[in-house]
Amino acid sequence: MSRLVMKFGGTSVATVERIKNVARHVKREVEAGHDVAVVVSAMSGKTNELVGWCKEAAPLYDQAEYDVVVAAGEQVTSGLLAIVLNDMGLPARSWQGWQVPLFGSDAHGSSRIIDVDGAGILAGFAADRSVAVVSGFQGIHKESGRIVTLGRGGSDTSAVALAAALKADRCDIYTDVDGVYTTDPRIVSKATRLDRVSFEEMLEMASLGSKVLQVRSVEIAMVHRVPTYVRSSFDDPENPRQGTLICDEEDIVEQQIVTGIAYSKDEAQITLRRVADKPGVAASIFGPLAEANINVDMIIQVVSDDQATTDITFTVPTADFDRARTILEGQRGSIQYQSLQGATDVVKVSAIGIGMRSHAGVAARAFRALADKGINIRAITTSEIKFSVLIDAAYTELAVRTLHTLYGLDNAA
Amino acid sequence: MSRLVMKFGGTSVATVERIKNVARHVKREVEAGHDVAVVVSAMSGKTNELVGWCKEAAPLYDQAEYDVVVAAGEQVTSGLLAIVLNDMGLPARSWQGWQVPLFGSDAHGSSRIIDVDGAGILAGFAADRSVAVVSGFQGIHKESGRIVTLGRGGSDTSAVALAAALKADRCDIYTDVDGVYTTDPRIVSKATRLDRVSFEEMLEMASLGSKVLQVRSVEIAMVHRVPTYVRSSFDDPENPRQGTLICDEEDIVEQQIVTGIAYSKDEAQITLRRVADKPGVAASIFGPLAEANINVDMIIQVVSDDQATTDITFTVPTADFDRARTILEGQRGSIQYQSLQGATDVVKVSAIGIGMRSHAGVAARAFRALADKGINIRAITTSEIKFSVLIDAAYTELAVRTLHTLYGLDNAA
Repeated sequence: MSRLVMKFGGTSVATVERIKNVARHVKREVEAGHDVAVVVSAMSGKTNELVGWCKEAAPLYDQAEYDVVVAAGEQVTSGLLAIVLNDMGLPARSWQGWQVPLFGSDAHGSSRIIDVDGAGILAGFAADRSVAVVSGFQGIHKESGRIVTLGRGGSDTSAVALAAALKADRCDIYTDVDGVYTTDPRIVSKATRLDRVSFEEMLEMASLGSKVLQVRSVEIAMVHRVPTYVRSSFDDPENPRQGTLICDEEDIVEQQIVTGIAYSKDEAQITLRRVADKPGVAASIFGPLAEANINVDMIIQVVSDDQATTDITFTVPTADFDRARTILEGQRGSIQYQSLQGATDVVKVSAIGIGMRSHAGVAARAFRALADKGINIRAITTSEIKFSVLIDAAYTELAVRTLHTLYGLDNAA
Repeated sequence: MSRLVMKFGGTSVATVERIKNVARHVKREVEAGHDVAVVVSAMSGKTNELVGWCKEAAPLYDQAEYDVVVAAGEQVTSGLLAIVLNDMGLPARSWQGWQVPLFGSDAHGSSRIIDVDGAGILAGFAADRSVAVVSGFQGIHKESGRIVTLGRGGSDTSAVALAAALKADRCDIYTDVDGVYTTDPRIVSKATRLDRVSFEEMLEMASLGSKVLQVRSVEIAMVHRVPTYVRSSFDDPENPRQGTLICDEEDIVEQQIVTGIAYSKDEAQITLRRVADKPGVAASIFGPLAEANINVDMIIQVVSDDQATTDITFTVPTADFDRARTILEGQRGSIQYQSLQGATDVVKVSAIGIGMRSHAGVAARAFRALADKGINIRAITTSEIKFSVLIDAAYTELAVRTLHTLYGLDNAA
């Protein structure tokens, strides 16, 4: 008997009517011979309502209790789906995070999965092929016995981790799009749905701004080699499309040099001008930021025009921009820089493809194409299978379209 | 250090603003030197929303999954109250039924409490006087590890059972009225708030129609001798009234003969005319009803006017009236009766008082007074500390007022 984990997000379970539609997807897979575990999110809008109450209760709310409140959202969905499945004649029971149990770290609100014990669910499969309806996004801290949540989007991570624990043959992530595209179809109408994409590429795409899957869920899928489909919950349950398979590189026959173009608006740029060029200066800048839990992304250092000092440019998440400025201004004495310049109207555009490993000059072509369109590049970073450029936000669409066309990703239609 | 359990119902926690008011009541008691556990219901209206979704999911929903869905309501309230308390500087944490743990039977939807383990909560008291915010109405079935609920009104029962487990000095039930009245103040304006009422009287009042407390909660309070206050959550948290104390008979100094008048509209009358008067006839009537889980209350048997057969009258809950009729009509051959008459427009009015034990003729005075007002009595039952009469529903108010005045319960004001 093959095993399958299916995951449905908030919009797919927004109403009881939609939950019934989800049940029809589950029924199809059970009848196809799979033992099925379904991971569900809270009904769309519910999490926001619960978070709103927490904030009303106290702007600086207790994180552990926040987890208790928001975890109730998935609990409701899992119970309702189990009711519908039982009513359709499919044995089913709900599993909360603490019942599975799915053990997480005690970082309330952004817990990391430590271990998933699939024994209870497997016993249900063995007994009567009982469908396990699992509340996503939540777990339990082993030592304290308290509820933890994985943070926004954590249901994807729950699903993939559960698939790994159950040694599932496949994990199907149902969402409101029908797969992974070469870029955001909302800004590039010629975006193409990918049939397959490698774990490594998907991880870069998720990290670089694609919102289809959570970074952490792709990491787990990659580490445990869980074949994962991204597909649409709004397809006809009797006749669904297949979506995009995230899989091993070796399983992808026709490889492109570039697989996708991602962009992220969640970047802010900081430049320190005329920094005293002495040993340890990088540490004096980035040490205090690291201590404040601010993630620094792109870093560029160039000699200043006076040839005696250096200019250092880097990016931080937009949400941390003000905090980073304040910290650096406080460190001005020890860092010794002439001025601090910042910009939030910037965007990071990235091209991802495992083909870059074996093809030289992929990025260089991009720089030329962007320059030809009059787009100024503020910063560049590259890694083995991707490169990113930081540009003015106003040029986002133009840059994404230019690269999409350049690398032959435009839909023929 | 004295221990106190406080319980707040759905209307008292209907909004975050009201939850903050509840927190002020808790703060007062903590500052008065009590270690406090607070039992909370779901926000008013939330349980109905959740039950509505279950019914929409499947009219004959799985009871175990229903429990999962509705238990989410209390989980939200407990987390929110813990957030508010922590924000006010009072250490607090929430406890779900499975965390306490409160063990219940596996009768999903109407589980009975088997055991409450207060060790975790007591450890919190010992560590930092942490307020335990406990989700009412819910528990866990020890063997299956699944969530159970105690049925409507179960939060009162949770509170009293927790008070017994913690060996609390007192259990305060906060509600939307300021205590227990001699009768329903909505129909008798001269109803008086009682300062004290005995466990036995309160048990009869709850059984006979008073909605202030759940029967099961009074039973547990009586068995474990938990002094229990009924008081108002809408009082000024800094200066609340005391409410009504439910306590041992011996602790009541000024005893009335009759303490309260209750009424219940949830009664339907069935009369079987000219039943063959032979041995075992009662068993042939009430056996099948018992098997169908129908509670029979008042039973009267009188010889028919033909002197050869007997008429049997009894009451059943209104909800079971049609089912009872169908069963009895099916048994007509074995019971041998001439006709079956039924009435649902009847009401049971009861007078309760431990003073009846030592005073003869208490009920007789009532029968005369009711007759004087032209109220026809359809049936009578008596026990050691109460008597009940079944009358036409149209006379409810008149009968309650008449008895209230007769036994000197009218407010002097």
